[in-house]
Amino acid sequence: MIMYIVIIGCGRLGATLAAELSDSGHDVSVLDRDAARLGILGSGFNGLRLKGIEFDNDNLVEAGIKQADFVLSVTPDDNINITVSLIAKKNFNVPRIIARINDPGKKSVYEMLGIETINPTELSAYILKSRIEETPV
Amino acid sequence: MIMYIVIIGCGRLGATLAAELSDSGHDVSVLDRDAARLGILGSGFNGLRLKGIEFDNDNLVEAGIKQADFVLSVTPDDNINITVSLIAKKNFNVPRIIARINDPGKKSVYEMLGIETINPTELSAYILKSRIEETPV
Repeated sequence: MIMYIVIIGCGRLGATLAAELSDSGHDVSVLDRDAARLGILGSGFNGLRLKGIEFDNDNLVEAGIKQADFVLSVTPDDNINITVSLIAKKNFNVPRIIARINDPGKKSVYEMLGIETINPTELSAYILKSRIEETPV
Repeated sequence: MIMYIVIIGCGRLGATLAAELSDSGHDVSVLDRDAARLGILGSGFNGLRLKGIEFDNDNLVEAGIKQADFVLSVTPDDNINITVSLIAKKNFNVPRIIARINDPGKKSVYEMLGIETINPTELSAYILKSRIEETPV
């Protein structure tokens, strides 16, 4: 099933997601304030790229948030991710919103606000710990 | 089985690993050039913390690389991670070395050098993609 996915932030994670999800046939738009970062996507990217402040209502509408199935807010700034997630939830009633946690100390804020998250640091620590502890004696 | 684990870099990933592995009973040392970052570990951390250049032979010896079962080089700088991994392998014959990939473009360098890696960005993109595509219609 083809999804409409709005990605906020075109850093390494945002750009990787945009490329992979677009390659899988989904409709993808990416919003970032920095044109250079949007350039990382290259000419192979079929989705929409938009330069603008990530939590600006008009920019989000232009990115297609009204028809979005998913909003992935994956900037390196937790405050931006929280703000965008709340706008997506309250103003646009987006069915599913996932935000990246950067500072593990902010985890409880996301939890209190009921925002689904992904934490690359925690995920990597978990995988590394499993690799270490599964090492044969 | 208790492992001796040398962690290079005390950013978010290094500090999380240090705390979790130490809490699990492993012997952990952490090397970072920035004292402020080592301070993140807090007083609850039972391992060794060392301030110094990450790829300096003497610093690595002081961190216990000679008796290390694992070296985890998880700085945000791929060149440091590659250098440390090669020193650990060639000079100290560490049984297992895992490096963090920061720039996905450097993946092939790690592969060519035979360095085991973890890529937080790739891992997170994979998990997010699974979450999106497993969504019930």
